[in-house]
Amino acid sequence: MDSVTLGLDFGTLSVRALVVRVSDGAELGSASVSYAHGVMDSVLVTPREKIPLPPNWALQSPRDYLDALFAVVPAALEKAGVRPEQVIGVGVDFTTCTLLSTRADGTPLCFAEEFQNNPHAWVKLWKHHAAQRYADRINETAASMGEEWPVRYGGKVSSEWMFPKILETLEEAPDVYNAADVFLDGADWMVWMLTGNLTRNSCIAGYKALWCGGYPAKSFFRALDPRLETVTEDKLPGPVLPVGTRAGGISERGAALTGLYPGTSVSVGHTDAHVAAPALRIAEPGRMMALVGTSTTLLVSSKDYVPVPGVCGIVKDGILPGLWGYEAGLGCVGDAFGWFADNCLSPALLDEARDRGIPPVSLLTEKIGSLEPGESGVMALNWWNGNRNPLGDGDLSGLFVGMTLTTTPVEMFRALVEATAFGTRLIIETLREHGVAVDEFIASGGIPGKAPSIMQIYADVLGMDIQIAGTKEGPAKGSAVYAALAAGSERGGYDTLADAAAHMGSEPARAYRPDHTRRRIYDLLYRDYLVLIDYFGRGGNDIMKRLLDLRRRARADRL
Amino acid sequence: MDSVTLGLDFGTLSVRALVVRVSDGAELGSASVSYAHGVMDSVLVTPREKIPLPPNWALQSPRDYLDALFAVVPAALEKAGVRPEQVIGVGVDFTTCTLLSTRADGTPLCFAEEFQNNPHAWVKLWKHHAAQRYADRINETAASMGEEWPVRYGGKVSSEWMFPKILETLEEAPDVYNAADVFLDGADWMVWMLTGNLTRNSCIAGYKALWCGGYPAKSFFRALDPRLETVTEDKLPGPVLPVGTRAGGISERGAALTGLYPGTSVSVGHTDAHVAAPALRIAEPGRMMALVGTSTTLLVSSKDYVPVPGVCGIVKDGILPGLWGYEAGLGCVGDAFGWFADNCLSPALLDEARDRGIPPVSLLTEKIGSLEPGESGVMALNWWNGNRNPLGDGDLSGLFVGMTLTTTPVEMFRALVEATAFGTRLIIETLREHGVAVDEFIASGGIPGKAPSIMQIYADVLGMDIQIAGTKEGPAKGSAVYAALAAGSERGGYDTLADAAAHMGSEPARAYRPDHTRRRIYDLLYRDYLVLIDYFGRGGNDIMKRLLDLRRRARADRL
Repeated sequence: MDSVTLGLDFGTLSVRALVVRVSDGAELGSASVSYAHGVMDSVLVTPREKIPLPPNWALQSPRDYLDALFAVVPAALEKAGVRPEQVIGVGVDFTTCTLLSTRADGTPLCFAEEFQNNPHAWVKLWKHHAAQRYADRINETAASMGEEWPVRYGGKVSSEWMFPKILETLEEAPDVYNAADVFLDGADWMVWMLTGNLTRNSCIAGYKALWCGGYPAKSFFRALDPRLETVTEDKLPGPVLPVGTRAGGISERGAALTGLYPGTSVSVGHTDAHVAAPALRIAEPGRMMALVGTSTTLLVSSKDYVPVPGVCGIVKDGILPGLWGYEAGLGCVGDAFGWFADNCLSPALLDEARDRGIPPVSLLTEKIGSLEPGESGVMALNWWNGNRNPLGDGDLSGLFVGMTLTTTPVEMFRALVEATAFGTRLIIETLREHGVAVDEFIASGGIPGKAPSIMQIYADVLGMDIQIAGTKEGPAKGSAVYAALAAGSERGGYDTLADAAAHMGSEPARAYRPDHTRRRIYDLLYRDYLVLIDYFGRGGNDIMKRLLDLRRRARADRL
Repeated sequence: MDSVTLGLDFGTLSVRALVVRVSDGAELGSASVSYAHGVMDSVLVTPREKIPLPPNWALQSPRDYLDALFAVVPAALEKAGVRPEQVIGVGVDFTTCTLLSTRADGTPLCFAEEFQNNPHAWVKLWKHHAAQRYADRINETAASMGEEWPVRYGGKVSSEWMFPKILETLEEAPDVYNAADVFLDGADWMVWMLTGNLTRNSCIAGYKALWCGGYPAKSFFRALDPRLETVTEDKLPGPVLPVGTRAGGISERGAALTGLYPGTSVSVGHTDAHVAAPALRIAEPGRMMALVGTSTTLLVSSKDYVPVPGVCGIVKDGILPGLWGYEAGLGCVGDAFGWFADNCLSPALLDEARDRGIPPVSLLTEKIGSLEPGESGVMALNWWNGNRNPLGDGDLSGLFVGMTLTTTPVEMFRALVEATAFGTRLIIETLREHGVAVDEFIASGGIPGKAPSIMQIYADVLGMDIQIAGTKEGPAKGSAVYAALAAGSERGGYDTLADAAAHMGSEPARAYRPDHTRRRIYDLLYRDYLVLIDYFGRGGNDIMKRLLDLRRRARADRL
């Protein structure tokens, strides 16, 4: 009877469970369940009301996570044909920073009648961008105090991170802030629900909560707001443990939620992107892992610490043990593609997609493959969701330029895809300029395996081979590898990550190679991209901010 | 038995015939017939072949004009319930400069087997923009020679005008140039086909062919190209007659084409926009006529001549007798709206339009009415077809900025409409700054009567009452008024335009009034519009030109 581990990957829209054989990494079966309320970005649906949300909000329901968990574990085990007693460990990864505010026992505040109609009491999803002004305040305060930690974060805290979201709650809903005994990420909350143990993990704490052996000093938080002086002591209980550490065994409650045996080993939480590395057998510096999906996360490790501007975070042991992990990314990739396919179709394209029974986004992805670089005449900035790196600014927006009366949606879609490739190139070039080697590019996530046209564009724009991960289950499988590590050899797992990765990870499946003619044209277009970045993103013209501000005011007038 | 005149309005996609009672201007009946090949902007369909066209081309078939004429006149008379003998005059207006090259007898060169596969031998429609480089050369040559005439044209000849199109033919198809005995506009060609008399008219000659009592000097044309030295003598035969002059009577051939009686009076040709003024009873300075349709033409008269930068043309007697006519416009208005509705729909919008049996563009137009200024968060530049005024540059393209993941097609469409209103405001403010009064705004053309949401936006952006023409048939009715003038009282018409306009013109039907709150927000947005104009249109960043150039090269490689 084979031993298996279970990887639970909580994504933006659904949770995925994957059953992996410990001996050789075989993927025995998986299941996925969507969250009933998905992303609530225009209306918050509470048990009693439908509450309109301002722009840039993005909430989720913790109930959805539990409901989806309850359904997904038995489904995955059944698909895999394994019994609960074969499961030696569970790993959990999650979107981050996806922030919950809870009671001391882990009960989310939004479950309480008194808070259920307060949007601040709900889960602030990673792409909740309404806390930009609080991120600005944190950045200004840190700069004025000469704090040392911002240099590890490209000089800027993102509105997506933990403290801007907490500060937003404090300022806009102090009753929620006061009632919260614990602020924590979805990953750590889920581990808590499974094990009964409140733990945190070095990856999320390092990348999203400014942790580096400790949090920033009380003096900093006091300067931000006197009420925050002891926030890390008061509101962030639980030890920060290295990723791959065993958080505990499944509790009775966790067993009831999953159908797994009490005592089954659970590793501490992890970030959905970072967790995938060992699933792709990445264990060396210079091999970049790109998780390309709703957003893109780029992760690469280096022996040395060097400050690089415009990255999300530089964290020791953040990706691979013993190395400095460099993280950067694009906030809006698959999200932008999905928006486009929902909003920019010709009747003929829509009819063709319906006739063929495929989603419009798949049809668009297929059709852009027949265009050459420059042929569309269109350029885009894919900032529908702000720009994560290198600008770290949630108050930016999307752009299309170059349309004529013969321009087609397919041409505009290609420009949007190219914009994400240019954004990826800019991050890689910034890393290299500062001495962080990026020698290989290994693509994982929802898009690479099913979009050859997009991967070829990436190869041509980056001028690099694009390797495609040998598994489509990078995050879930990574969680399964970490589950085997947390279990340890005494429970049938492994004692080192290298060992676990070597046995359970997957080799890249195929590669796209750059074409030199196409690359030359992209070099020309990339120059124009850099000019637009400066103009719209670095203060040349702050029109995007003014338009968002006018929109906010107009919508507020209407509410 | 009432006397009537017939107005023939040759638009971009169809010809319209309107029967008007001479005594009181009653519109007795009308018909319209589409051109079989419409606008050929990607493929030229000849009797033998389908020939791919480069970007920015726009051709038509003269055969389509004759076929449509043959069908439309009897249909209009039947609708009106009048007999051919009641028709005392015919007036013709046309898009301009819509250039034909013909034999000495008027036969278009594209009818000849030897030229039918040469795109240059076909009708170069007004929005054929491939001659930009020749317009540039004309402008550079005129500037270097210190010619006096450019000041009447805002300093710039447009690629849409006659001499850039002729120079393009000379350079790219010298055999076509050499074989052409006559270059002339569609309006004058149609009058020729009807009467057998080759005439030209002061409006088109003045606005599109640099005529002001005479053409530019031979020395200028020689400097442009020695082969062009005698172009105006050799290739532009026919007297230039004031608009409203009688060109002659219908010939036997004209009678066969129309079913009208030989000898029926025909006025000289006219521009589709300018011709409408008397139909709207416009006979004074300061009353701006706006023809808002596929493109927008803005016309206003003044007692004084003042040079205004960035207008299309300043022509004595160009609009109203005894006054200087000022013309400016936007090259892409309804065209941009149509493009949007063909390419930027959500499935829900398309399904709603289909369920209700209305065109998507009508649904979008209806829905933008529920948004407030600034609420969309989006700004556009409506240059899908280049910018006619004030930039006079066909090598510009469209832009959208400000999209987020909650942006809808309706919001983007509103931004596109607003862009056309901002462009209109810029032209009006430029005229006023130079001393040309614009006191009233009377809107005509395809859009005003059926798009209250768009007209309210115009009122709010311009801060002026928008009067809507009392007839939806401005151009066709204007041609009918000019037909009565050309016939003169001896043939049952009128002897002065004022007299004809007073009897036959229509009073404005309704007005949209500006709202001061909305206007204040548009004042803010207009500032941003001006910055984008400078950046993308006046050399701040020539990315639009580079993208178009790369697109041209990519498409050429493919051909």
